Amino acid sequence: MSVSENTPSKPTARTGSPAAENTRKGAHAAGSAARNNAGAIARSKVIKSDPWMDSYAARADNMRASEIRALFSVASRPDVVSLAGGMPYLEYMPFDELSDLIAKMMRDKGDVAWQYGSAQGDPHLREDVLQIMALEGIKDVQPDDVVISNGSQNALDLITRIMCDPGDVVIAEAPNYVGALGVFQSFQVEVVNAATDENGLIPESFEETIIAANKAGKKVKFLYTVPNFHNPAGVTMSVERRPRILEIARRHHVLVVEDNPYGLLGFDGQTYPALRSMDAENVVYLSSFSKIIAPGMRIAWMVAPTGIRKKLILANEASILCPPNMSQMTITTYLDNFDWKQQISQYRGMYKERCDTMDAALREFLPYCSWNKPKGGFYIWLQIPEGLNSKEMLPRAITAKVAYVAGTGFYLDGRGTHHMRLSFCYPTPENIRIGIERLASVMNNELRTARLFGTSPDERTKQGIKRR
Amino acid sequence: MSVSENTPSKPTARTGSPAAENTRKGAHAAGSAARNNAGAIARSKVIKSDPWMDSYAARADNMRASEIRALFSVASRPDVVSLAGGMPYLEYMPFDELSDLIAKMMRDKGDVAWQYGSAQGDPHLREDVLQIMALEGIKDVQPDDVVISNGSQNALDLITRIMCDPGDVVIAEAPNYVGALGVFQSFQVEVVNAATDENGLIPESFEETIIAANKAGKKVKFLYTVPNFHNPAGVTMSVERRPRILEIARRHHVLVVEDNPYGLLGFDGQTYPALRSMDAENVVYLSSFSKIIAPGMRIAWMVAPTGIRKKLILANEASILCPPNMSQMTITTYLDNFDWKQQISQYRGMYKERCDTMDAALREFLPYCSWNKPKGGFYIWLQIPEGLNSKEMLPRAITAKVAYVAGTGFYLDGRGTHHMRLSFCYPTPENIRIGIERLASVMNNELRTARLFGTSPDERTKQGIKRR
Repeated sequence: MSVSENTPSKPTARTGSPAAENTRKGAHAAGSAARNNAGAIARSKVIKSDPWMDSYAARADNMRASEIRALFSVASRPDVVSLAGGMPYLEYMPFDELSDLIAKMMRDKGDVAWQYGSAQGDPHLREDVLQIMALEGIKDVQPDDVVISNGSQNALDLITRIMCDPGDVVIAEAPNYVGALGVFQSFQVEVVNAATDENGLIPESFEETIIAANKAGKKVKFLYTVPNFHNPAGVTMSVERRPRILEIARRHHVLVVEDNPYGLLGFDGQTYPALRSMDAENVVYLSSFSKIIAPGMRIAWMVAPTGIRKKLILANEASILCPPNMSQMTITTYLDNFDWKQQISQYRGMYKERCDTMDAALREFLPYCSWNKPKGGFYIWLQIPEGLNSKEMLPRAITAKVAYVAGTGFYLDGRGTHHMRLSFCYPTPENIRIGIERLASVMNNELRTARLFGTSPDERTKQGIKRR
Repeated sequence: MSVSENTPSKPTARTGSPAAENTRKGAHAAGSAARNNAGAIARSKVIKSDPWMDSYAARADNMRASEIRALFSVASRPDVVSLAGGMPYLEYMPFDELSDLIAKMMRDKGDVAWQYGSAQGDPHLREDVLQIMALEGIKDVQPDDVVISNGSQNALDLITRIMCDPGDVVIAEAPNYVGALGVFQSFQVEVVNAATDENGLIPESFEETIIAANKAGKKVKFLYTVPNFHNPAGVTMSVERRPRILEIARRHHVLVVEDNPYGLLGFDGQTYPALRSMDAENVVYLSSFSKIIAPGMRIAWMVAPTGIRKKLILANEASILCPPNMSQMTITTYLDNFDWKQQISQYRGMYKERCDTMDAALREFLPYCSWNKPKGGFYIWLQIPEGLNSKEMLPRAITAKVAYVAGTGFYLDGRGTHHMRLSFCYPTPENIRIGIERLASVMNNELRTARLFGTSPDERTKQGIKRR
């Protein structure tokens, strides 16, 4: 779980006196009084403010804790059923056998695993990922075309870093993966949403968005899309739309960043041709081990056109020097010694069962809500009746021992109050049912309250998305 | 070894025809001809150029391969004695015992090690690093003050990201750690050098540099300093200068970024009080496991004043989501089960012997060069006679089977042709002696050539730094 340790400000002195604290402008007052000086005392009036407030880069103003992270300290309480996190379920991992193999790898190659590695990533791992990508139709890639990154988060960071100046536009689906929004904000990118429906990004809307941005004098740097089992929307871009999206992108010379962590998690084993499989020149493809194997190594990979790839390697070096050899060799040890396809298939079955359980529980307990039942991935994107506000309701849900992520976390403009993301990846089916029952109890209470103030749950019929 | 896989452009088609390649503007031509379209054909005249050339962010223009990395593909050839890399020697690591303990950790806590973790870093590891920092006088820090980063490289990236707008000034020693220069360039920071001598950064020069930058209307965001066993200069900031540097920084409200990967590698076990131990409010302290234990986990840590720390955690999340649990738990497994102080002491002795060997070989084979013999760390910064050019000479050194890093890699302004960095950390004493002998042979040849063209090695007496 991506647990936040970023607790609220604790300006209390740990070892210093309150007087000492005053002279230090509110940071913790540990240390020797000898550090005091005229400058510090002169500034001491601004008690408990940040003395570096005026020194930060403009991009730091845009950084804020994601709503997901802000939630995790409560959502991780054992008595709370968390439908909030995007953590894969790891209990099927063969940790016993794996630990022996990793020990052997350490004994045999510890001096490599513990040493610096290549900025582009371990050649063995870059070879291994080819067979994973082949499952989604990407068959023209060589190890030299692959760049290993420190999780997809860092991959998104790197591609944004090399492509986007402040004020540049990235077109994205809405709602949107919260981690991508965090990156875009931190590089002062303007995120413009194109419309989506149950078949993913709508090509016409994508093109209109490009044209409108260009007319406004803005530079559209790339489309960011999660085509398969979208986080949080749960939808998949239809196969029919994929070449159309690519054709529009090519025609307007807009790069496509295809973020595909969930592509192999189709519940029936179905896969869709990657955008990258249809266009080698205009697509940067990102995938990750985090959802299909495990996130604790923070290893993902990118495939990009030659010029972009070279810059990604330079950016990787500037950002992290090189991905960790130990993590990369742990993954190759796993891939080389286990039937990972069978393992992924086992996970798929488990997630399917959990999704079915959640869908059934929603039908039973929350029939007045709307959702598209996903065909893979980790999430259901739930539309709640008007009169309810997912963000305002959250504290009461936590009190009722169920957590979700309010829809507002997946937009930058305040939208999302009528939606929430429900994750079925980590909790057991039993807990999913309990969680949805608790959620229904909270929502029913909210609706009774709302009715008292004149908003009827029947207003849900005004809502655009129909339940299937 | 930080091996570059960033090979030169290979625009040869792998699966496509030459005709198809022409229409794809020189990237590899894999894929279906159906992808061709009017736009692509119109641009096809620019054969083999990067079609995204006009799309990159301004900051990407500043990214370039470091001279160190560009060198490694040849320097890692087994017949070459590499005095180039900054790799720690790992043969003393207890890999056999460690592998058993890591296997046990995996069996017991695999579901944690392989899962997402905290954006701030593993609390256990944040507790562990306190005892390491205490060795250099930092005793007022709590685990909540620590942020774990993906190596010091990412720590430098994060601090620059939150502090520096394009055009802002960072004051730094010269020569400078090449990885830091890479970060500063990638964030379009102006690096202004303050003067150093054998006692490190000169306080008067530091203050003059601040004043001059301020007068020029520039914002000085921080001082970047490697106070102990500097990379590449080998010098240590004297204890007497440290409070003076801090006083100047405070007076001008300039943050100090103290990068301290080598502090525990003083050959006689001597340590120096960290700048952070004297000032909790104005110092961001960085340290790393890469040089004192091993770099293959890419784990470092930061301690920062409260406001800055909070932004660093947000930036960490935007950059990498969270540091890898597996890496962090591997390190805590090591720290908890081994006498790491004894291990570092063993390394120190080994590096001392290697430094002595290099110093003796330089005295024997290259008496006409100048250097300060370091008291710790990994590097000797060698001044070579005028008339020689370390960068131009490098290909001939490689031919003679010895590699070093030309001094130009440690400056941004073309300086450094009369210097080279020689690493004694990784090669054995025998190889160090062989390497210096080969280097002397190359340099003697160069000098003979230089004499023929009128530049005498006796001009070395014009040089400022005296050999001790």
